[in-house]
Amino acid sequence: MDFSPCWLNYAKVADQRYNQVYICCTEQDPIITNALYELKTGFDSMFGINSQYAADIDVDKLPGTLVVKVNIERDCDLHPEGYWLKGQAGMITLTAKTSRGILYGAFALLRKIQLGLAETDIDTKVEPSFPLRMLNHWDNMNGTIERGYSGNSFFFDNKQILFNERTRFYARLVASVGINAVVINNVNVDTTATKLITREYFDQLRPLANLFSEYGITLYLSINYAAPITLGDLDTADPYDERVKQWWKAKAQEVFSEIPNLGGFLVKADSEGRPGPFTYGRNHADGANMLAEAVEPYGGKIIWRCFVYNCQQDWRDRKTDRARAAYDIFMPLDGQFKDNVILQIKNGPMDFQVREPVHPLFCGLKQTNMMLEVQIAQEYTGQQRHVCYLIPWFKEILNFHTHCGKEADTVADIVSGRTYNQTNCGIVAVANTGNDYNWTGHDLAAANLYGFGRMSFDSSLSAEKIAEEWIKLTYGIDPVVVDNLRTILMMSWPAYEKYTVPLGIGWMVNPSHHYGPNVDGYEYDRWGTYHRADWRGLGVDRSSKGTGYATLYNEPEKSVYEHIETCPEELLLFFHYVPYTYRLKSGKTLIQHIYDTHFEGVEDVEKMIELMRQLEGRIDPGAYGRIMQRMDHQLWHAKEWRDVINSYFYRKSGIPDEKGRPIY
Amino acid sequence: MDFSPCWLNYAKVADQRYNQVYICCTEQDPIITNALYELKTGFDSMFGINSQYAADIDVDKLPGTLVVKVNIERDCDLHPEGYWLKGQAGMITLTAKTSRGILYGAFALLRKIQLGLAETDIDTKVEPSFPLRMLNHWDNMNGTIERGYSGNSFFFDNKQILFNERTRFYARLVASVGINAVVINNVNVDTTATKLITREYFDQLRPLANLFSEYGITLYLSINYAAPITLGDLDTADPYDERVKQWWKAKAQEVFSEIPNLGGFLVKADSEGRPGPFTYGRNHADGANMLAEAVEPYGGKIIWRCFVYNCQQDWRDRKTDRARAAYDIFMPLDGQFKDNVILQIKNGPMDFQVREPVHPLFCGLKQTNMMLEVQIAQEYTGQQRHVCYLIPWFKEILNFHTHCGKEADTVADIVSGRTYNQTNCGIVAVANTGNDYNWTGHDLAAANLYGFGRMSFDSSLSAEKIAEEWIKLTYGIDPVVVDNLRTILMMSWPAYEKYTVPLGIGWMVNPSHHYGPNVDGYEYDRWGTYHRADWRGLGVDRSSKGTGYATLYNEPEKSVYEHIETCPEELLLFFHYVPYTYRLKSGKTLIQHIYDTHFEGVEDVEKMIELMRQLEGRIDPGAYGRIMQRMDHQLWHAKEWRDVINSYFYRKSGIPDEKGRPIY
Repeated sequence: MDFSPCWLNYAKVADQRYNQVYICCTEQDPIITNALYELKTGFDSMFGINSQYAADIDVDKLPGTLVVKVNIERDCDLHPEGYWLKGQAGMITLTAKTSRGILYGAFALLRKIQLGLAETDIDTKVEPSFPLRMLNHWDNMNGTIERGYSGNSFFFDNKQILFNERTRFYARLVASVGINAVVINNVNVDTTATKLITREYFDQLRPLANLFSEYGITLYLSINYAAPITLGDLDTADPYDERVKQWWKAKAQEVFSEIPNLGGFLVKADSEGRPGPFTYGRNHADGANMLAEAVEPYGGKIIWRCFVYNCQQDWRDRKTDRARAAYDIFMPLDGQFKDNVILQIKNGPMDFQVREPVHPLFCGLKQTNMMLEVQIAQEYTGQQRHVCYLIPWFKEILNFHTHCGKEADTVADIVSGRTYNQTNCGIVAVANTGNDYNWTGHDLAAANLYGFGRMSFDSSLSAEKIAEEWIKLTYGIDPVVVDNLRTILMMSWPAYEKYTVPLGIGWMVNPSHHYGPNVDGYEYDRWGTYHRADWRGLGVDRSSKGTGYATLYNEPEKSVYEHIETCPEELLLFFHYVPYTYRLKSGKTLIQHIYDTHFEGVEDVEKMIELMRQLEGRIDPGAYGRIMQRMDHQLWHAKEWRDVINSYFYRKSGIPDEKGRPIY
Repeated sequence: MDFSPCWLNYAKVADQRYNQVYICCTEQDPIITNALYELKTGFDSMFGINSQYAADIDVDKLPGTLVVKVNIERDCDLHPEGYWLKGQAGMITLTAKTSRGILYGAFALLRKIQLGLAETDIDTKVEPSFPLRMLNHWDNMNGTIERGYSGNSFFFDNKQILFNERTRFYARLVASVGINAVVINNVNVDTTATKLITREYFDQLRPLANLFSEYGITLYLSINYAAPITLGDLDTADPYDERVKQWWKAKAQEVFSEIPNLGGFLVKADSEGRPGPFTYGRNHADGANMLAEAVEPYGGKIIWRCFVYNCQQDWRDRKTDRARAAYDIFMPLDGQFKDNVILQIKNGPMDFQVREPVHPLFCGLKQTNMMLEVQIAQEYTGQQRHVCYLIPWFKEILNFHTHCGKEADTVADIVSGRTYNQTNCGIVAVANTGNDYNWTGHDLAAANLYGFGRMSFDSSLSAEKIAEEWIKLTYGIDPVVVDNLRTILMMSWPAYEKYTVPLGIGWMVNPSHHYGPNVDGYEYDRWGTYHRADWRGLGVDRSSKGTGYATLYNEPEKSVYEHIETCPEELLLFFHYVPYTYRLKSGKTLIQHIYDTHFEGVEDVEKMIELMRQLEGRIDPGAYGRIMQRMDHQLWHAKEWRDVINSYFYRKSGIPDEKGRPIY
């Protein structure tokens, strides 16, 4: 195996209490087969046994034996993907309404055993928090990955679809944490990938879709909005044109007849140079609905990205605000989208910065299916060379109250479907995987993949609890390992925020590759991403007196963001232009806060390295070596961030550090 | 022909005074053949005739007839490449000591006729100003050109050498202005180009070397210092290693026996990641001399670039000064280089910025052969999308007094060989050509190619005179065309300097591609290229109290550069950190000077466009259209430069423009 098993390594558990396990089930289908095989694999490995499938067993007579009873109860009131685990001495019952529930329950059971729980401590009943729990892979068919930091694609190479041992392991890995939908190709669909929905690729897609479905995962494809033109049939992609409608209907019929378990299409339209309905003077509802009609007969969904903005902005223009763009474009269309359209909305209005306010569309849309899009590919958060455990950040976003007027008004409520009684909704992450041995470039970045899945299946789990699970499953239950890695993970996102971009302003990175500090990198450019720093202060006035972005929120956020005194400080520079001498609630001036946090951030990295050093000999030496190598780089790079940011603002403000530390 | 004939278009002259031309010559060799054929081609085209070759003709009897007598006087005291033109009614005599002199005289004669001179006005005796007059093409064998702004290579494609109609025209074009040496491949020698000195390419190089030599041009090749390793024979390139010495000796013997008219090798060693003698703890004299010994038996030369510096500098370090690097490395080696080694020294200590001081090595080295390297590829001067006629700048450099203690002490004196009585010296330009129809991307950029050649053959010509020649030869003698284009060319470099980087500081460009404004683009990077701007002022202290760079010059420059009051203002920020409120000799503050020049620079471009517009219908419409298209871009881009630079310094200094113009 040229890849790590990650959290599915099923290491031997300390308490080898079972000398035999009987897995009893009378149901049969491909998902059940996989679930039962997973149970056997897990128990065999954790206890060094050869567990048996059986119809039923009398446990009392067999000491050291565990019986796992697997039952489907088709008429129970569990969610179709939920499961129910009940344990007593020597016996565990796993019940679900469907085989998918059994699969998730099987993974849950193995996890609990791996975590060291006795069968008497595993009682639980879990239903998934979000209907769609998706990964978006930005993999290109030449094998590269856009914003990929873990090697090349394991889905594509040389214009062909890969299907091998790793493919199946991938399915196990993501199914184990509850992922139920996957888009394998980049949202930026090039000419080759446009052809995925043609005869050229059906025979390669079919086995993949089948494998996925046997792990409860639905395959989706990113499509090119201009496919009717690119594939050579028409000279337009106008959604009002009858020929275009017919083309898509025929295409959908063809694709779904070839790959019946396909979930639908993901579309990035009118965004960063991609084609879309704007070309034809149509709006995004026109574009999305036309596609939705085509896939509707097959139960297909259209997932439509809201990442639409003017990427040719004049930097001199202080009226136009990229943060407003998606809201201004999509809000007027609320209620116009068909029910099988889901708007995929990034967590914030900009683009996956280390800190942003929650996207205002979540506060506004009321009659539109929504999915929350986050990014575990660490494009702006250290590119998997820095440790940056993102689950705490995602939890904050999910727990944000939109004050949309309903009782259940958090982002989590909305994208779970609770708020507006929707079923086509959920949560999606831009994936952080590649064909590196460890899947995620940085070994600790696997915590984000694990964590995203777990959080999306059970949003009640805390980030800390998820981290602890991941550590134990991956590296075992040695308390030093667990404590130190949990501390590292939990301090990593705050540390990264401290030594990089201050107080929500974002974008002080090198253009295009987005790695490393460059305060003015985007300041005089066309991307709508400015900090407006001058000799007095910095920040963008997004209050009603500025771009008006703050007014897009409901009360009380609208007023909270409007005023510098009430604005949450972590977002202060996102919403306001603030003088360097402004006193924060800590009593520090803004400039001193910038200096202090940047020194602190580096000290945090030094602490993380010290904690990591203590694990030498306690975790797999390969993983230890890889992690330490990246952490050494992280420390160097954190210092680079610290010194560039501090020097930039010192040189601009002329205000020295109160503590007299070196600034250049 | 898919390329422009440029200044060799031999357009019909207004005064069609000859109905026949007899070209009389009794000499024969390939260069003479080319010279005579050029005369015939030129006269035929300019007068619409079919001129004749003849042994001798009695002119008195033939009205409207011109006789051109071509004589080689082998024992005259002319320079071997010089020529002597004498005219009387109906008769012109072209005399030279060698056939190369005849070739240059033939081109000179045709030029004079094209410029409208009568045969009675052409008397002249010209000897070349510099022994080597060279072009360096940074062409890669895959067909790309490093810092190429005119399409792809016409020397290479797909790892093969091209040899076609354009190759011959290239030879005519550059020979016509006096170029006598050409390096066809990039100084950054990749694996493919390393093989140019192997059997794989001899058969392709030979016809090229022969063609060139028939136009008085010597072919040189850039080589890879690590070739003994790269080509697979040895595990070292240590110049002290006997095996390495023997390898190069055998290699030289092989190469020169296959291509006897090869001139030698150009080497970029220990520079920006290239291998070199430093790897083995040897110095650059060790490296160069080892190669020089190898090529010596064949009359070969080693041209050794001095562009050596630490490109891994810590931006925090204010002691290290890249500007000092070449001086510090090469000065201690003065007198140690063999006579067939020539150090190729860039005009300034940094890298072809729009303004730099003259390289201090020209002031220091006394026992070393030197060549001046300039760049007509407009890497930092508008990349052939902006008009930027560079000959005025090169003239300033050539006329700089080094005060080296000899009477003839200008840079021109030194690289002509006059100062130290040297013969292996000269001038070289990084070429600006490619396979675009017009050769140089921007039609007006051809003036730099023409001008470099003319200036290197006759350094007494003024930049203005050269511009005028080029315009007339290219577009005819319409006085509006001549006046307007000359004005555009002459104002272009000052305009570019005004709207880009102020007062010699350089480097405020986007990293890597080097196009467009980015004030901090290199400020926090590893390249040794900093402006050190803060809220008080900007500039690098290179006085004795700073990096000491100013002390590398002879008196009086040493003292002149040392003090802010005496430092030439166009270099003020190169040598000094200067407060924004410092008053320049104009009475303006530094910051106001920055604002004013940036507004002026854009106004200059507007004037150039107005002058260009007046030429519609007066020059070839294809050229007009191409030039106007680029000038439109230049205006947009000049505004971008103006606004970014002004806004950057306004935001840093807090000092408003006295005239209240828009700054962002």
